[in-house]
Amino acid sequence: MEIAFDKSGGLVPAIIQDNASGEVLMLGFMNVESFELTRRTGEVVFFSRSRNQLWKKGESSGHVLKVADVRVDCDADALLIRVNPVGPGVCHEGYRSCFFRSLNHEGSARILAERTFSPDAVYPSKSPSANEAK
Amino acid sequence: MEIAFDKSGGLVPAIIQDNASGEVLMLGFMNVESFELTRRTGEVVFFSRSRNQLWKKGESSGHVLKVADVRVDCDADALLIRVNPVGPGVCHEGYRSCFFRSLNHEGSARILAERTFSPDAVYPSKSPSANEAK
Repeated sequence: MEIAFDKSGGLVPAIIQDNASGEVLMLGFMNVESFELTRRTGEVVFFSRSRNQLWKKGESSGHVLKVADVRVDCDADALLIRVNPVGPGVCHEGYRSCFFRSLNHEGSARILAERTFSPDAVYPSKSPSANEAK
Repeated sequence: MEIAFDKSGGLVPAIIQDNASGEVLMLGFMNVESFELTRRTGEVVFFSRSRNQLWKKGESSGHVLKVADVRVDCDADALLIRVNPVGPGVCHEGYRSCFFRSLNHEGSARILAERTFSPDAVYPSKSPSANEAK
């Protein structure tokens, strides 16, 4: 089946869900090339909108996302990728999931989770790998 | 906190996850107005890219999505909305989740789920409500 990459400028959103726990870990975007690389290598590759280039998740941190299942929605314009994550977390702020904050009714954010690793150790701010996280 | 609506033409992706089961049900997009309506009313309102207008999920079908929690990712450019769904499913094809298909290695799709309702009964093809599902 064909994924509708043409629907929004060549990119489709890809939800990343932990295959064991069901936790939603992050959302990235994929173009045709990153989608094919993800499928062929079995590890998630996004397309970074800010850097306008392919972005292999975990390339510098080692926190790669091993693909367990690729699901497609009814309109084939969104992906749900179930993964077995390597390492303590996917978020460049040191959390297991990028969705570590909840909004209250007044619109302010409350942190729900504990950090699972030190982002400074994994993403040193002076090195190129600081850009590895989206 | 501010959501980064300006990052991709005024829209951010909103992942809809069942609050009880953890199942990812669908992905839609929100602009500022639909996000504020969602927050104020406690029921999910998207912005339909194809119809270029607000889209209250369940307006015609009755299958509304009651908001349990609103989470924001590290870059504030993606939303994870945990919901208590009303009705048997969110997908206009009659499934509980829009992500009812898995891709195999050859790229063909396999249906993972059973239909939970008849889409023809809920979304009659000749009525305006046929457009209610994205």
